[in-house]
Amino acid sequence: MKKLINDVETVLEESLEGFGRAHAHLVKVNMNPNFVMRADAPVKGKVALVSGGGSGHEPLHAGFVGKGMLDAACPGEIFTSPTPDQMLAAATAVDAGAGVLFIVKNYAGDVMNFEMAAEMYEGSSAMIITNDDVAVEDSLYTQGRRGVAGTVVVEKITGAAAEEGYDLEACKALAERTNAACGTMGVALTSCTVPAAKKPTFDIAEDEMELGVGIHGEPGRQRTNMMSADDISDRIISAITEILQPSREDDLLLFINGMGGTPLMELYLMYHAAAKQCEARGLRIRRSLVGNYCTSLEMAGVSITLTKLDEEMIRLWDAPAQTPTFKSC
Amino acid sequence: MKKLINDVETVLEESLEGFGRAHAHLVKVNMNPNFVMRADAPVKGKVALVSGGGSGHEPLHAGFVGKGMLDAACPGEIFTSPTPDQMLAAATAVDAGAGVLFIVKNYAGDVMNFEMAAEMYEGSSAMIITNDDVAVEDSLYTQGRRGVAGTVVVEKITGAAAEEGYDLEACKALAERTNAACGTMGVALTSCTVPAAKKPTFDIAEDEMELGVGIHGEPGRQRTNMMSADDISDRIISAITEILQPSREDDLLLFINGMGGTPLMELYLMYHAAAKQCEARGLRIRRSLVGNYCTSLEMAGVSITLTKLDEEMIRLWDAPAQTPTFKSC
Repeated sequence: MKKLINDVETVLEESLEGFGRAHAHLVKVNMNPNFVMRADAPVKGKVALVSGGGSGHEPLHAGFVGKGMLDAACPGEIFTSPTPDQMLAAATAVDAGAGVLFIVKNYAGDVMNFEMAAEMYEGSSAMIITNDDVAVEDSLYTQGRRGVAGTVVVEKITGAAAEEGYDLEACKALAERTNAACGTMGVALTSCTVPAAKKPTFDIAEDEMELGVGIHGEPGRQRTNMMSADDISDRIISAITEILQPSREDDLLLFINGMGGTPLMELYLMYHAAAKQCEARGLRIRRSLVGNYCTSLEMAGVSITLTKLDEEMIRLWDAPAQTPTFKSC
Repeated sequence: MKKLINDVETVLEESLEGFGRAHAHLVKVNMNPNFVMRADAPVKGKVALVSGGGSGHEPLHAGFVGKGMLDAACPGEIFTSPTPDQMLAAATAVDAGAGVLFIVKNYAGDVMNFEMAAEMYEGSSAMIITNDDVAVEDSLYTQGRRGVAGTVVVEKITGAAAEEGYDLEACKALAERTNAACGTMGVALTSCTVPAAKKPTFDIAEDEMELGVGIHGEPGRQRTNMMSADDISDRIISAITEILQPSREDDLLLFINGMGGTPLMELYLMYHAAAKQCEARGLRIRRSLVGNYCTSLEMAGVSITLTKLDEEMIRLWDAPAQTPTFKSC
C-alpha cells in the first residue's frame, strides 16, 4: 500500500484539518466530535441540511457544505458511519430554528445512527434516506437499495430549495421526490485500499470488472470480463431505465461520476457513450455533470446516474451554489 | 491495461465529443483540427488567450476555457504536442482583433509547434512559456525547466486580466511575472498508462516513489523509498523555497495538485502537511487551491505549487471565472 499519509490512525483528522484550512472562507471544521459546517451558519430562517457518512467518498459530503447545498456534514472514519454525537453537535450548531433535514445514504450503520441522533435531537428534524443504486436489492451493508451518487443530486436540489426558504416539510418532500427520480449504477475496474486495512478491499483480475459495484467495493450484479465503454454504458443505461421508466418527454440529468482513480478523459468518453445510449432510446438530456463527486478512495471506475427532472428541479439545479467542490454562479 | 474506452485510436475524439456535449453552454468543440473555444468567442475588444498541449493532463487545458480564463485550448494526442494547424485555427476563431497570447508549457514539441503557429499567424500574437517545475534543469522532453501545474495559476491570473481589458503586451508581462513567481515540484507513487502504449510508462516498486517526477512520468530528481506526507512536503517545500526565496512578508498561494489517481482525502492531508512546512519557515499562505488540475492520466501522486502573489495577482486570482472546471463567482 502506497499512500500520501503520515499514519493510518490519523488520516481523517489530518485531512479534515487541511480541508478546513484550504476552504476557511467557506467552512468551519469542528474536531471531536468531527463535523464540517458552513462558515456563516446558522443561517436565519433557513432549514438546515445535515448529511454525513463514512469518509473515503470525498468530496461527498464535506465538499458540498456551503451556500446552496449543505449546512453541515459529519465524516465518519473511512467507510464507517459517523456517530450520533457528531450528528447532534452538527445539527445544534447549524439549526437556525427552522429545523434540520438529515440526508442519509441507505446503509444500515448510517441509518441507525442518524435515527438515534434524530430521536435525541430536541429541535424539529426530519430525515430522507437516499437509495438510488439500482444494481442490487439488499447488499453487504444494506437492506434495500444502496444510496450512492444520486445523493449529490438530492443535496444540490434540496440545498437550493432550503436556501430559497422552503420549510422543513417541503424540503423533505422535495428530497424524497428527487431521490425517487434518480437511478444509478456503477462499475469498478480496480479495488480501493482502506489505509487501516493496508490491502485492497477485493481482488479483481486484469481482464475483469465488477458491474454494479458498491461504493465501498462491495459486490454488485456481476463479475464479468472487461467491456468497451459503449457496452458498459448500454448495460448501465438499460438497468437504470428499466427502473426509472423515463419517457421521451422527460428532461434528464446525465451524471457521470468518477470513483476516484479514473482519468477525466475517460469520464468524458463515458459521458459521450452514455449520451449515445440515451439518444438511441429517444431520451433527452437537459443537464449534465461529469467529475469525481462520490468516490471510493482510489478505485478506478465510474457510475452513471440519470435523474428525471421536472421544471422545479431544473430551476433548483441551476441555482447558485458556493461550496468547496460544487460551484455554480 | 483496463480503461473505460472503446478503441485506443479514438480515445481523444470520443472524449472531446463528450466534453463538448457536457459543457455546451460554456464551450464549443471543433474537430479536425481539434480545438475547444469559448461559446461566446470572439469577445470584442479582449485579448484572446490560447493554450494547448498533449492530452492526458485534463482538466488542463480545455477545462479552463471560458469566461475569465482561456479563449481556446488545443489538445494534442495523449502526451503529444498539438500541431500548428490546430493552434492557427483556434487563434483565428477567437481573436477579436486585440491579439492572441499563446500560453505554452515548456516542452520541446509544444514550443516548436506554437512558435511555428505564431510565425504563420497573420494577426498580432505573443507567447509566454511556463517553466515552473523546480525539480530538474533539462529533461527527457525539455531544455530548461518543465512547465507543469503553475500553468493553471498563469492561466487564471492572466485570463482575469484579459477579461478586464489588459492589452496584449500587459497580458504577456503579467503572465511572465506570474510564471516567475511560481515554483512546483511533484512526486509519483505509481505510473500512468498511455492507452496506445498498453503498458505503464515506467516501473516502480511497491516501496518506491519518484521525487520530482514530470507530468508524463519522465524521471525527476530521485527514485527513493516511500516517505511520509510530512517528509515529502518538507522535501518539496525546501526545493521550491530554495528557488523562489519567499520572505515572511510575501503572500503565498499554496496549490496542491493531484496527478489523477490520488484520493481527495490524501490531497487535503498533503495540504495540511505542506501548510505546516510553510508555517515552520515563517511563510504566510493567503490563497489555496486543492484538487486535480494538471494530471497525468491515472498516476497516483501530487505536486505542490507555491506562488508569490502581489496585490494585483490576488485581485485577479479572486476575479470571477466560468469554465467547465474552474469556477469562481
